[in-house]
Amino acid sequence: MSKKILVLPGDGIGPEITAEAVKILNACRDAGLDAELEEALVGGAGFDAEGHPLPESTLAKAKAADAILLGAVGGPKWDTLEDLSKRPEKGLLGLRKNLNLFGNLRPALLYPQLAEASTLKPEVVSGLDIMIVRELTGGIYFGQPRGIEERNGERVGFNTYVYAESEIERIGRVAFEMAQKRGKKLCSVDKANVLEVTILWREVMNRLAPEYPDVELTHMYVDNAAMQLVRAPKQFDVVVTGNMFGDILSDAAAMLTGSIGMLPSASLNERQQGMYEPCHGSAPDIAGQGLANPLATILSVAMMLRYSLGEPQLAARIERAVGKVLDQGLRTADIAYPGTRQVSTSEMGDAVLAAF
Amino acid sequence: MSKKILVLPGDGIGPEITAEAVKILNACRDAGLDAELEEALVGGAGFDAEGHPLPESTLAKAKAADAILLGAVGGPKWDTLEDLSKRPEKGLLGLRKNLNLFGNLRPALLYPQLAEASTLKPEVVSGLDIMIVRELTGGIYFGQPRGIEERNGERVGFNTYVYAESEIERIGRVAFEMAQKRGKKLCSVDKANVLEVTILWREVMNRLAPEYPDVELTHMYVDNAAMQLVRAPKQFDVVVTGNMFGDILSDAAAMLTGSIGMLPSASLNERQQGMYEPCHGSAPDIAGQGLANPLATILSVAMMLRYSLGEPQLAARIERAVGKVLDQGLRTADIAYPGTRQVSTSEMGDAVLAAF
Ligand SMILES: CC(C)[C@H](C(=O)O)[C@@H](O)C(=O)O
Ligand SMILES: CC(C)[C@H](C(=O)O)[C@@H](O)C(=O)O
Repeated sequence: MSKKILVLPGDGIGPEITAEAVKILNACRDAGLDAELEEALVGGAGFDAEGHPLPESTLAKAKAADAILLGAVGGPKWDTLEDLSKRPEKGLLGLRKNLNLFGNLRPALLYPQLAEASTLKPEVVSGLDIMIVRELTGGIYFGQPRGIEERNGERVGFNTYVYAESEIERIGRVAFEMAQKRGKKLCSVDKANVLEVTILWREVMNRLAPEYPDVELTHMYVDNAAMQLVRAPKQFDVVVTGNMFGDILSDAAAMLTGSIGMLPSASLNERQQGMYEPCHGSAPDIAGQGLANPLATILSVAMMLRYSLGEPQLAARIERAVGKVLDQGLRTADIAYPGTRQVSTSEMGDAVLAAF
Repeated sequence: MSKKILVLPGDGIGPEITAEAVKILNACRDAGLDAELEEALVGGAGFDAEGHPLPESTLAKAKAADAILLGAVGGPKWDTLEDLSKRPEKGLLGLRKNLNLFGNLRPALLYPQLAEASTLKPEVVSGLDIMIVRELTGGIYFGQPRGIEERNGERVGFNTYVYAESEIERIGRVAFEMAQKRGKKLCSVDKANVLEVTILWREVMNRLAPEYPDVELTHMYVDNAAMQLVRAPKQFDVVVTGNMFGDILSDAAAMLTGSIGMLPSASLNERQQGMYEPCHGSAPDIAGQGLANPLATILSVAMMLRYSLGEPQLAARIERAVGKVLDQGLRTADIAYPGTRQVSTSEMGDAVLAAF
């Protein structure tokens, strides 16, 4: 049966970058991928058209899809919305939660062709290849109770950082399995010297470890992890952590490569249904100018082919095509430097297509 | 009246590094500082001697002191203590909470003499001088309810991230005032697109801003802040944030300098009573070998003189002495490199004393 792919361009540079990724998806269909594409609105675009960042029709299509390609959401236009539940981000969070996409894979990979882009010294980052596995549907992002209320004559804001054993176990298994396929090292990040919820986290990781005897499990406090990412990032293979710490550490790790415009991500549920999106944001300041780098979104398509569509060979073809284009010296503005040839968003997409 | 200084050597390298700092404190007394020194046990040392990481006698002395100099707490010896309330860290957290030391100042300063120690490219970090102002007695570190309990047949861990307006306001004022004395730029870090407690945080910072018209206030999400610290750290002057985000970001910022063995910190309450400690930990692996760098602790004494003892000139003398010693090429193991002269912990202390 034909697979269903839902494309959600979103806001800012979202429409431009997904357009290039769709070119590649169509090339995959020409190469034998049996898939149908559909498009829908999310984020600020959803709010503008239907008054909600996650319109019901979009959610219905998302639930029916095998895989979702998301551009990016958000922008200053919607930042002043008083009602937090209407903000573009809630479209994204709603998709994650409603589709139960608890397993967020965020690779931080340094492309040798782009080594100079890193702010870190070459010897510190050359060959960097970290996979951050972030829990995406629990923790403080979704914990109840939450809100702002009056207590003793003043306002108090509160959120709840909460994990159940079963939630920790399922993300733990994703991470252990990922480590088995990679360098067999798993570092679980917590703050077990202060937070009870992460004491439970650490306990569950330790309980799972004997089932994966080929994986070496270590634990690190989150403050130390932030430090070690700067000091010696190559010590990491797979990192597993909760929603909030994962948000922070994956962005830091991504930036170590100096080219966040290159980094894809996947968010999976238990049936391998997935949402795929670039790690970067909607970059409203450069939207519509052909300056955006579509490679993270194109590489997100590769992740989609590998994790949700069972097409690892097409995935590898896309990744090789991206490598070739970099070898040719083509660069969008964010990764350009003297001696390379700067191209626009669509020129970059076309170049990958030609190399595919 | 004579000032009271309480010295808490703590665990690991704590006793070695505080011993060097005490040499400098004594030199300050010779130079006119009217102060009495006393010592007490905390952390693992407190637990071993009295069964508690913050013995009552220590807490009483701490409350009576004008300033506290802390070495470091913790080590593998106590990591397996089942009862979290007996862990060395709880000694530190107990001091912070009981003395109401809500204002944590964590400078990340790159010493030009040590520029090579950074893992970042020189142009990215040269001249780096950030002050992180971290809220230290609230937020998720102390929020109730907290714990691990059975719910629906499985264990659930939970903590509460909570701030009242008044707590946000008082740390905000510390940060605005700090910015006024420095580069007049304040960046408040939150996650206001997801967490209600930080929506309130942002609101309070915005409310305070008009009272400090000479300070430029900006806001940044914590994931972006982690990224920007790696990408372009010199964009920051003063950063203000909550307890947990501050823990993570201050360690990342410290590591940008490559020499965390150089960085002091101060934790202050409303009456400028303060606890002063190096940013680094207790480093049990090198304890007792004369390898530890005492400079962060010595520079913590300088902060103490400036913020709690009203002796800015003595503070500046210490800072100049440290600069001179670095100029002389003396280095402890952590910051040594070819062409410098490696010295022991006590040799370093003596050198600062000679240069004072
Ligand atoms: C946009 C925001 C809600 C989101 C998050 O915090 O998860 C983003 O930062 C991310 O990491 O995907
Ligand atoms: C030891 C630990 C409890 C402490 C903290 O998390 O605050 C430390 O990391 C720090 O930053 O001073």
